[in-house]
Amino acid sequence: MSSDLTSYLGINKGRYILLEEPDFHEVVNIVNTLKNIYVIIMYLNCKVLYKGRARSILEDGDRLLITKPDGSLLIHEREKREPVNWQPPGCTLVASIKNDLLYIRSIRRNPREEIVVISTHVYVLLATACDKGKFTLWGSEDEMASIVMENPDLIEDGFKPLHREYPTPYGNVDLLGEDKHGNIVIIEFKRSVAQLSGVSQLKRYVDFMTKYHKKVRGILVAPGITNSALRLLKEYGLEFKRLSPTLKMPESDIKRSPLFSNDV
Amino acid sequence: MSSDLTSYLGINKGRYILLEEPDFHEVVNIVNTLKNIYVIIMYLNCKVLYKGRARSILEDGDRLLITKPDGSLLIHEREKREPVNWQPPGCTLVASIKNDLLYIRSIRRNPREEIVVISTHVYVLLATACDKGKFTLWGSEDEMASIVMENPDLIEDGFKPLHREYPTPYGNVDLLGEDKHGNIVIIEFKRSVAQLSGVSQLKRYVDFMTKYHKKVRGILVAPGITNSALRLLKEYGLEFKRLSPTLKMPESDIKRSPLFSNDV
Repeated sequence: MSSDLTSYLGINKGRYILLEEPDFHEVVNIVNTLKNIYVIIMYLNCKVLYKGRARSILEDGDRLLITKPDGSLLIHEREKREPVNWQPPGCTLVASIKNDLLYIRSIRRNPREEIVVISTHVYVLLATACDKGKFTLWGSEDEMASIVMENPDLIEDGFKPLHREYPTPYGNVDLLGEDKHGNIVIIEFKRSVAQLSGVSQLKRYVDFMTKYHKKVRGILVAPGITNSALRLLKEYGLEFKRLSPTLKMPESDIKRSPLFSNDV
Repeated sequence: MSSDLTSYLGINKGRYILLEEPDFHEVVNIVNTLKNIYVIIMYLNCKVLYKGRARSILEDGDRLLITKPDGSLLIHEREKREPVNWQPPGCTLVASIKNDLLYIRSIRRNPREEIVVISTHVYVLLATACDKGKFTLWGSEDEMASIVMENPDLIEDGFKPLHREYPTPYGNVDLLGEDKHGNIVIIEFKRSVAQLSGVSQLKRYVDFMTKYHKKVRGILVAPGITNSALRLLKEYGLEFKRLSPTLKMPESDIKRSPLFSNDV
């Protein structure tokens, strides 16, 4: 790290570097030196070019650019949850100056995908340490499967779970079991309203298992299902069982969390 | 807008407001006044609680929070393309102070989903105008369909396109046509390597059309296909046709864009 950067870091005890109206040499220096250590956010005027499996051009405008140490790149506009352009983790980022313009180029190797951000002006640069914190999720499909393992009668009387994550060439079956008549039962869990894609997924498993077993039943287990998905399910001769994730949490977490009390 | 905010705006000619180590009253004032006008970015220490179709707790840490005028909310950590917590457009955001802590709460009505960000410290607040620029994409599935409309022989000799976006209860067929023997042909385009889900999608359309027509063929058109998808395709008696989007661009765009020359 250059002595310039050490002095920036000193100001904020290493938590972040904040520059207003930095010149391009400062930007290039910080990006190329800190890109693998810090999350870097820029508010800048830019155009964005993308070339890979498709191609796109985003015309000049003021936008947010975020780079992460894992190689992710995000370009956000004023609207939408999704970035307008992006790269996944694993990409290589390089900043440079050419003809008085700032170039930030991100390259993905496989498939080959390239994003070039060309900027005339950086208003603000913020480089931050950014943590990765402990994240705990309740109400997942995995948790639904655990609940059914413990209480098989939630599916139906006499249901016997056999395998979780049972492998097939078309993906892993969430839960494989048998009913009281000895028929194979394939269960696919969805933690929210089931869609057409969930029905097709279940159908793939049932079709595969039918090659090896005489009678195979398929049950989609979810808190709800769309009309078109229910219609397809019936056409395929598959079944639906309504079950919501319990959202059970340890009592201690509930007490610690104002969201889950009437306290907020 | 309060006079305080007008003075902030004056400093940067309305492009952005930048505050280092703002107190919570400044943050609450800016968020609640400008949330529907500006994209607001904060680098802050926080925990994040989520309650809705599932529940989660993200423990204390330094993170990026982004709110957009359309109601989107993103919380980013040091890793991954995806935010760790988020809300889609259409949510309502409110900032407040309680027990010396900053609360930023985002509520989605349907389905009911609530995120509460609880902060002990805001390091930086940046409120930006952020543009929404002209975005042009080449190499889409829509473009593949247009190319086939103009050159039906790319599918096979004698293929005759009839309808684009032909509606079924299971979604719109990309392209409906007939072959030289008068059989119905259903075409599903994928702009990159086709997956199992694409095969199932095509199967849903073919199954539906088979109710009304004697002989229905289904062709998945993509630059490539996974092994498991090809296997399933064959089991279903469907066909694959290799075709890449041309990525054709107007010459003028190519000349204007250094990405597409050898100039960068």
